[in-house]
Amino acid sequence: MDIRSFNPPVRTLMGPGPSDVHPRILEALARPTIGHLDPQFVAMMEEVKSLLQYAFQTDNALTMPVSAPGSAGMESCFVNLVEPGDKVIVCQNGVFGGRMQENVERCGGSAVMVQDDWGKPVDPQKLEDALNANPDARIVAFVQAETSTGAESDTKTLVGLAHKHDCLTIVDAVTALGGTPVKVDVWGVDAIYSGTQKCLSCTPGISPVSFNERAQQKIRNRTGKVQSWFLDLNLVMGYWGGGAKRAYHHTAPVNALYALHEALVMLREEGLENAWKRHQRNHLALKAGLEAMGLSFIVPQGARLPQLNAVSIPEGVDDALVRGRLLTEYNLEIGAGLGALAGKVWRIGLMGHSSRAENILLCVGALEAVLSEMGAEINTGIALGAVQRALSA
Amino acid sequence: MDIRSFNPPVRTLMGPGPSDVHPRILEALARPTIGHLDPQFVAMMEEVKSLLQYAFQTDNALTMPVSAPGSAGMESCFVNLVEPGDKVIVCQNGVFGGRMQENVERCGGSAVMVQDDWGKPVDPQKLEDALNANPDARIVAFVQAETSTGAESDTKTLVGLAHKHDCLTIVDAVTALGGTPVKVDVWGVDAIYSGTQKCLSCTPGISPVSFNERAQQKIRNRTGKVQSWFLDLNLVMGYWGGGAKRAYHHTAPVNALYALHEALVMLREEGLENAWKRHQRNHLALKAGLEAMGLSFIVPQGARLPQLNAVSIPEGVDDALVRGRLLTEYNLEIGAGLGALAGKVWRIGLMGHSSRAENILLCVGALEAVLSEMGAEINTGIALGAVQRALSA
Repeated sequence: MDIRSFNPPVRTLMGPGPSDVHPRILEALARPTIGHLDPQFVAMMEEVKSLLQYAFQTDNALTMPVSAPGSAGMESCFVNLVEPGDKVIVCQNGVFGGRMQENVERCGGSAVMVQDDWGKPVDPQKLEDALNANPDARIVAFVQAETSTGAESDTKTLVGLAHKHDCLTIVDAVTALGGTPVKVDVWGVDAIYSGTQKCLSCTPGISPVSFNERAQQKIRNRTGKVQSWFLDLNLVMGYWGGGAKRAYHHTAPVNALYALHEALVMLREEGLENAWKRHQRNHLALKAGLEAMGLSFIVPQGARLPQLNAVSIPEGVDDALVRGRLLTEYNLEIGAGLGALAGKVWRIGLMGHSSRAENILLCVGALEAVLSEMGAEINTGIALGAVQRALSA
Repeated sequence: MDIRSFNPPVRTLMGPGPSDVHPRILEALARPTIGHLDPQFVAMMEEVKSLLQYAFQTDNALTMPVSAPGSAGMESCFVNLVEPGDKVIVCQNGVFGGRMQENVERCGGSAVMVQDDWGKPVDPQKLEDALNANPDARIVAFVQAETSTGAESDTKTLVGLAHKHDCLTIVDAVTALGGTPVKVDVWGVDAIYSGTQKCLSCTPGISPVSFNERAQQKIRNRTGKVQSWFLDLNLVMGYWGGGAKRAYHHTAPVNALYALHEALVMLREEGLENAWKRHQRNHLALKAGLEAMGLSFIVPQGARLPQLNAVSIPEGVDDALVRGRLLTEYNLEIGAGLGALAGKVWRIGLMGHSSRAENILLCVGALEAVLSEMGAEINTGIALGAVQRALSA
């Protein structure tokens, strides 16, 4: 066994996450490790909580990073809020709604699935019908920004409907946070989770979550224990809950939290609204280039996430070959389709630090070069100009 | 809100973990992030698996890092192996046996507790009695290296007893791995979990696990789904299981795995047996210094972990004040007592990169300086010499 130190290639990450990590964040990640109960670390934890409240636009006291990836943040919401026998309405319009169903069922709940086509946003009318048909439902869950399709659903409207029927809401904001408005308090979202490796442009591995008072009340009134010891918020909050006396629960991922802290400081420096505008502007430039080439979006206009652009793969083009050439010839990663969309779409991310003019030019230019060399039927010679005009507009 | 970049102090970490992280590992952590499905990342994952097989001394194919801290590694073992109704014998001689009980019960199993005094190893006779009294038990779980007390139990003997009674075994090796022998195959351990932030001297946040064929068979024969989607090994192995075609499960903590890879490369460079010897030699030097000062170990000789030294706090000494002064005056972290031992012991770690001669001198010297200034009844002027003699022996 001859295994040496691993030196990764330098890629441009324009898939569905991880996104490009800013050097400031990588540098923060490598600062000296200190103890998870060190007073200076504890003070930093308080700052991370405040910064996450800003990112989520909430005053929720229970706002913190789960020490594991977004899937664990999702599970954290479900295992704490869903008790055996609870009926949960899950709106599915992509891969991650299906994962929500798995979570509900593994918690002993029953999932009522409301299906929409992949690529479409969740239809509020269908949710309302399901709420009327299931007056005993306790919770509504859906994905604001479907990472598998690039479609955005209307969280404000869906949460409003759920509340009218006295349901709590669980919202997936993994791809949304930092790239498109997420307004937890104004919209009244009860429980929400996200990830670090999308529009926060941090390294993957941590999942910010937030729960409002109503969600906490349901957790406090549980009749049985939360089935996960690691994710039991009653215990986790003994550590993250603040105050001078913190109880050890698990060893926090110290350096990963340095990185998240730095990513959130950078988000605050830019300002949330400026970050949303930047994602939108760069989406329009990418769109101009891709459409000039003849590629088309799978999500209808008005529901497109600026940070995740899913386009149909042109007829007869070998999906894996194109992505492979982009990676080996240009060190450029774009995303494959997931689930039902595998082989049919590419997912091009413009998330966080990846959402930059130079990345758009690289992506459009490299795609045009590779596709035209492979003989795909695309328009050539006009895409880069279209990008440039959109960026200057 | 005026929050700036966080610059941690530079500490010497001699608590129960995290331990000092070698600069090579911090440097690896900060290498450029690439995608979790990038062929080069996938190749590195294979190396991490091989290196973990070496660390665990096993050929188990199902050997990999869980993308979350040691508590999640523990939960990973229990949620996959314990089915509702399963009877599990848990040997408890410290905090972490209690956490195992929580895990069993939250999986719907019933825990038969075998209690030993905190600070003592697990008594094989008590386990045998419990096995005889509970012929329907399916699993035996215990902690090889109790992080809360510094006591080491005899894994080989305990596993042998469990197998004689046809039980599977789950072993906690969080503090053991890399510091003291852990021989998964020779001892026949069925499922085992560890952490990165102890004797591997990596940053906290990842939990290496290994399952043998018999454990996997129990997982395959489950009648119901694993209650955790995130930790369901059937799904996780779609990603970690090897082969060219990996299925996306969750986004791996890419940079944290760079760091683990580097930590394991360093372990291999030193050699496991050399690492065990180094931990033992340095333990004896620390012991010489502490005993010369008049401090005494709470664990009987022969069951002491070289990497975690729990000593009684001298009568009348203010625990928190001493640890506070060590931290502020010498940037030295030692560990407090946990659970029943809070306020009664200090836990001094010599784990991984922290297990160095200079750390021993610093710790013994600083303790002597602070304790004597506070008027504690200790011997002065002889501890450093005792350390020096032990190191030269």
